[in-house]
Amino acid sequence: MKNTTVTGPKGFLAAGISCGIKKSGNKDIGIISCPTGAKAAAVFTTNKVVSAAVTICKKHGKSASIEAVVVNSGNANTCTGKPGIKNAETMCKTAAQLVDAKPNQVLIASTGIIGHQLPMGKVTTGIILAAAQLANSPKAGDDFAHSIMTTDTKCKQAFKTINISGAEIKIAGTTKGAGMIAPNMATTLCFITTDANITKPLLQTALKNAVGQSLNKLTVDGHQSTNDTAIILASGLAENKIINKTDLRYKKFSAAVSDLCTDLAKQMALDAEGATRMFTVIINGAASKTEAVKAARAVADYALVKCAIHGGDPNWGRIICAVGSCGVKINPNKLSCSLGNTVVFKNGRPVKFDPKKVSKVIKQKEHKITINLGAGKHSDFCYGCDLSKAYVTINADYHT
Amino acid sequence: MKNTTVTGPKGFLAAGISCGIKKSGNKDIGIISCPTGAKAAAVFTTNKVVSAAVTICKKHGKSASIEAVVVNSGNANTCTGKPGIKNAETMCKTAAQLVDAKPNQVLIASTGIIGHQLPMGKVTTGIILAAAQLANSPKAGDDFAHSIMTTDTKCKQAFKTINISGAEIKIAGTTKGAGMIAPNMATTLCFITTDANITKPLLQTALKNAVGQSLNKLTVDGHQSTNDTAIILASGLAENKIINKTDLRYKKFSAAVSDLCTDLAKQMALDAEGATRMFTVIINGAASKTEAVKAARAVADYALVKCAIHGGDPNWGRIICAVGSCGVKINPNKLSCSLGNTVVFKNGRPVKFDPKKVSKVIKQKEHKITINLGAGKHSDFCYGCDLSKAYVTINADYHT
Repeated sequence: MKNTTVTGPKGFLAAGISCGIKKSGNKDIGIISCPTGAKAAAVFTTNKVVSAAVTICKKHGKSASIEAVVVNSGNANTCTGKPGIKNAETMCKTAAQLVDAKPNQVLIASTGIIGHQLPMGKVTTGIILAAAQLANSPKAGDDFAHSIMTTDTKCKQAFKTINISGAEIKIAGTTKGAGMIAPNMATTLCFITTDANITKPLLQTALKNAVGQSLNKLTVDGHQSTNDTAIILASGLAENKIINKTDLRYKKFSAAVSDLCTDLAKQMALDAEGATRMFTVIINGAASKTEAVKAARAVADYALVKCAIHGGDPNWGRIICAVGSCGVKINPNKLSCSLGNTVVFKNGRPVKFDPKKVSKVIKQKEHKITINLGAGKHSDFCYGCDLSKAYVTINADYHT
Repeated sequence: MKNTTVTGPKGFLAAGISCGIKKSGNKDIGIISCPTGAKAAAVFTTNKVVSAAVTICKKHGKSASIEAVVVNSGNANTCTGKPGIKNAETMCKTAAQLVDAKPNQVLIASTGIIGHQLPMGKVTTGIILAAAQLANSPKAGDDFAHSIMTTDTKCKQAFKTINISGAEIKIAGTTKGAGMIAPNMATTLCFITTDANITKPLLQTALKNAVGQSLNKLTVDGHQSTNDTAIILASGLAENKIINKTDLRYKKFSAAVSDLCTDLAKQMALDAEGATRMFTVIINGAASKTEAVKAARAVADYALVKCAIHGGDPNWGRIICAVGSCGVKINPNKLSCSLGNTVVFKNGRPVKFDPKKVSKVIKQKEHKITINLGAGKHSDFCYGCDLSKAYVTINADYHT
């Protein structure tokens, strides 16, 4: 059996267990370890309120060699003041002792309910239990992937193999959630392992670029959470000639990480709370890159657009209204819109089309909305999902 | 019977009839007329895509004396290109002939479906029919108020009387919709009549201020529509000494217009699609006025906050996340939040509270969320409403 989990790339062990943070009894502590030490890169939420885990992870992320990542689900360790910071540090210390590393060689992430202190008795026992089960089997990788889930209905994993100068390089990733769609800010966490041999700065550049084109292009309800964290670990054991400049080898590696993250982002869109389908908003003709990004996100976040897509309604008027109101430059006489491949609005005027045919396109698992603002030459895109009654049920009926 | 409709203030006639734009047979053409001529002021949507009605209304609004306002519902006359402009001009010309005025003495507003040309045969017949029924009765005022409705379940009207230097001044208003909550960008239109004697510039200042503190503080789904228009007409027939400077008399008048608009905005919040309750977000301790406005709106627009309020859940974590992610300056160690009068989060730490008691507060028709950002001395507020399954049903099941 081919190992396509985070333990697939050479040099990684993993585990995922239940320690009782979640009342459901589902897995809630996970560890990835790299006994030979990995180069690490990470990107974090830009929310000004952040989890204690994010604060500590940012600090430890500077270490030259990382030996473990410890994650808990079921509690975000956010808005927990100084005790929260102390608990995050304790998690790193506990894991460090067990894998024979220094605390600053351990990265950390938390996800779940906000404003509650971690049950540290359970957490510490959980870390000990998980560390005892560390293995490089596909099952161990799967267990880890399950341990980071909150309201996800599906476990999300992706795997890629590329060849760089004769060496086979593996890249594996797992993620959870989608934006801030879960009941209590359960958030996007993403963990990627690779056996590529690459410098730390280029690993950071590749991750930042990949997340920018994938996870950061996905909006479910429009906001970043307090806990968002994406981490990549590179063991270097594929023994390729080190990737140390932005040449073709780097580009191949970087593209593979981007593809992997896009795969994960689309899995998240389709598993977003209440979502039944996803869509890609493509903005062309923007006056600047910033405005293209802004317009794409405005359409994908627009509740009336999301509702129309849920209903399979080719209601392009709501799309035009969204771009018109988001503050970007438009040329009303050149403004155009297509749903799938059908032009529905061109140069500021409606175009006759077959609504039944276009409705079928919208009802697919995935479709494209293309808008030309007629104001310049810049483009960007964004992923979104539909808004259903189930989203409201999940988020209104849940009680803290 | 006291006349508390738009025909209540001296000098105004009104009518509202059905001409068949709406398939339902409900009223869809309304006229307010002021045979002696009224000073007018207006504010409009900031959406860059605007209705042809808005384009024409902005032009005619400059006239010193306005004799009529003609409104249609059921069709927004938006994204309709040059024919749309011509149709808006025709509506003004038709009404002008009937009330014996010049076309630029007629203001205009449209609301309803986007991207369809107006059925001008019906519209012209409708204007003729409405003009023939112009009267100053309460029924005529009510008919007008009903003629501007789209998905509103309730007709929204407000009335105030104030005394300025011994003269009784009446102010009446009617509005429809709430932000962009209706199926096809049916939008906020607001019409106010008064018999106050006031200069045109001060009338504009009073309207702008009132709308800024009321209609512009209300968010249902976060965006301004293509048709939003608020118009105030002042006949001057109350014969008060003209309000021509920002003295106490002006302040009294301005406050009354603000109160009237706040009354209308709250009626809109409670009648927003699917809404069962409303709330006011109050931001204190912001670094600037702009940041206070931004933070208040971010909380009121936040889908997870709206869902929690629908469920009566005192989920303050979502509120903190909304302010943290909206880009304003915060001091995490001073950040605090109250639901109603109960402090739930203080100086960056959770506070124990009785969730059942606070849940009861949230389940009221109206409650307050107060947040201190701890970053400065500025304050602002915003009105919002809950997000229910009914919102999704209305906006997903509707087909263009």
